[in-house]
Amino acid sequence: ADVKKIAVIAGDGIGPEVVAEAIKVMNKTEELFGYKFSFEQGLFGGIAIDEKGTPLPQDTLDMCKRADAVLLGAVGGPKWDNNPKELRPETGLLGIRKALGLFSNIRPATIFDCLKEASTLKPEVLEGTDLIVVRELTGGIYFGEKFRREGENGQEAVDTCVYNVAEVERIVRQAFEIAQKRRKFLTSVDKANVLETSRLWREVVNRIAPEYPDVELEHVLVDNCAMQLLRRPSSFDVIVTENMFGDILSDEAAMLTGSIGMLSSASLGEGAFGLYEPVHGSAPDIAGRGIANPIATILSVALMFRLTFGYEDAAKSIEDAVAEVLNAGHRTGDIAVDKSKAIGTQAMGELIVAAM
Amino acid sequence: ADVKKIAVIAGDGIGPEVVAEAIKVMNKTEELFGYKFSFEQGLFGGIAIDEKGTPLPQDTLDMCKRADAVLLGAVGGPKWDNNPKELRPETGLLGIRKALGLFSNIRPATIFDCLKEASTLKPEVLEGTDLIVVRELTGGIYFGEKFRREGENGQEAVDTCVYNVAEVERIVRQAFEIAQKRRKFLTSVDKANVLETSRLWREVVNRIAPEYPDVELEHVLVDNCAMQLLRRPSSFDVIVTENMFGDILSDEAAMLTGSIGMLSSASLGEGAFGLYEPVHGSAPDIAGRGIANPIATILSVALMFRLTFGYEDAAKSIEDAVAEVLNAGHRTGDIAVDKSKAIGTQAMGELIVAAM
Ligand SMILES: CC(C)[C@H](C(=O)O)[C@@H](O)C(=O)O
Ligand SMILES: CC(C)[C@H](C(=O)O)[C@@H](O)C(=O)O
Repeated sequence: ADVKKIAVIAGDGIGPEVVAEAIKVMNKTEELFGYKFSFEQGLFGGIAIDEKGTPLPQDTLDMCKRADAVLLGAVGGPKWDNNPKELRPETGLLGIRKALGLFSNIRPATIFDCLKEASTLKPEVLEGTDLIVVRELTGGIYFGEKFRREGENGQEAVDTCVYNVAEVERIVRQAFEIAQKRRKFLTSVDKANVLETSRLWREVVNRIAPEYPDVELEHVLVDNCAMQLLRRPSSFDVIVTENMFGDILSDEAAMLTGSIGMLSSASLGEGAFGLYEPVHGSAPDIAGRGIANPIATILSVALMFRLTFGYEDAAKSIEDAVAEVLNAGHRTGDIAVDKSKAIGTQAMGELIVAAM
Repeated sequence: ADVKKIAVIAGDGIGPEVVAEAIKVMNKTEELFGYKFSFEQGLFGGIAIDEKGTPLPQDTLDMCKRADAVLLGAVGGPKWDNNPKELRPETGLLGIRKALGLFSNIRPATIFDCLKEASTLKPEVLEGTDLIVVRELTGGIYFGEKFRREGENGQEAVDTCVYNVAEVERIVRQAFEIAQKRRKFLTSVDKANVLETSRLWREVVNRIAPEYPDVELEHVLVDNCAMQLLRRPSSFDVIVTENMFGDILSDEAAMLTGSIGMLSSASLGEGAFGLYEPVHGSAPDIAGRGIANPIATILSVALMFRLTFGYEDAAKSIEDAVAEVLNAGHRTGDIAVDKSKAIGTQAMGELIVAAM
């Protein structure tokens, strides 16, 4: 059989706990659908700094390159926050994105009906919200030259934001294609009234748009988008934007769903290969206590099955199982209204496996 | 008597209509409190492009430099959106900020009790929200070098984000001072895990903080701040951040109040001089129809009286008058629940003058 190689990076904080439940789900998928997976584990982030002296060890990177897909738990924590740059978990994250060519970060912001109340937005405003933020992930101000220098008025710091035509084109095409499979409405976000990179961005979007005549396109300035996400979240379908704006807007969009513990993400490159991870962080405050919510990581597996392997049946089975368990009223602490009835990480994982 | 010179820039769209009501309020202030104002009007923005071929004519700039304070209506509109850069209203806006040395933009996000329902956030989440965003306004990626060049992979665009120590220091000191007069809690927002300018920013904040021992300080990453504004808006007091992040976060904060037609802003430099303007835009769709809400512009006058002239009595009188008129149930169309009962721009201005 065609064995899919999955590189597993548990990472820091609650990472190992939530990843363990995701692996149970993958094992169950083998049993139910006859797919075959092989797993390899690697160190990354804070734990890799502690054990190997670098957030992204070469053998972890090699493991990812050998694999068909990567599942990542979470990285980081206060322990490493004051380290020098080369010894910080984020540096590993930026490094792995670049080294694996993951230029696109896909973040669905979905409302879970049973969690609508957890949002700080009014339920009638959220009604019908179902959007995806497509964020450029390997360019812009994140990866441009950065340095200090002596200026006329003392020390100054410099960051450089660079985009070339090809970088914009590939992410924008991907966003158009995603929109074609959805409600066919694309919002391109930039700051074209101020930034040269945004003007280039907008030119490329406008040049490519006629190739996707079935997709309606709007341009929205980033400050206005931050407002419109609050005012009319349900009017968005696919939002495409550059790296820094995408960082901010995808987090804003995630928060307004009220379901941050439930959201998955995919980072994709040219082919089918992808890195999948929950949107939430490593939550060091609750690490090791068996109470973290594994659903976002489990749904990241569903996304991997759909986007990298084309296993739509397995993806659907996982998503339906999650919905079933939630509808039956089971909740981890983060999403429980009555915290005294909350169940733990393992119990949640096992209920989902049983419901598949 | 000490006559205060006020430069009035009505601008585009609804600008002239809302500014006319603000002038009535200033005239009433002269009558009630014995202060003296002289007004000079100048062209700026789209109308200046049309009549003078440049968004910021030299005589408008000279007028502002002669003045003690500037009142600005609104600028811009679709008519000029596709103009080359030098002929766009935004270019005038960036130009006037730089030329007048207005390095600080102060945006209070206040909840008007009677408008709480207009927010898309749940009222219980908004409860107690009263925050100010202090945005650096003449540095960062807005004003760094921008250009196109041929790179290894075809054409690329470049924006440069630069901050020096002095630029960070003056805005951060101002934010600390504002926090001292309020609830003494300062949130500094950056992206220090990625950007060199943010690392410099954070160093300066931490170096200065001990001089304001009565102010509690927190550092929040920009993506997290975009989330926390939604999750716990009432926990913020003063937020200080760089230009681009401030553009996005101040608009997000404004929108969550549900009162965007009511919010005023001040752009300040070294001394008492300031430029005051409503947060809302030029609303070309409703321009000339006499239905725009003048309250944000009127409240900008109150802010001018308080911050530039120290006329606290007059500022208070205007703010109280606005509250009284709103509490009596008067609404312009943008904030009316029953649109058929909405009153016009002039009627609203006159009610406020009468209530002073
Ligand atoms: C940790 C940080 C470098 C990272 C980013 O800004 O990309 C994170 O916020 C994310 O969105 O994955
Ligand atoms: C019009 C634009 C250049 C401006 C800015 O980005 O500063 C506006 O959005 C603002 O916030 O005043």
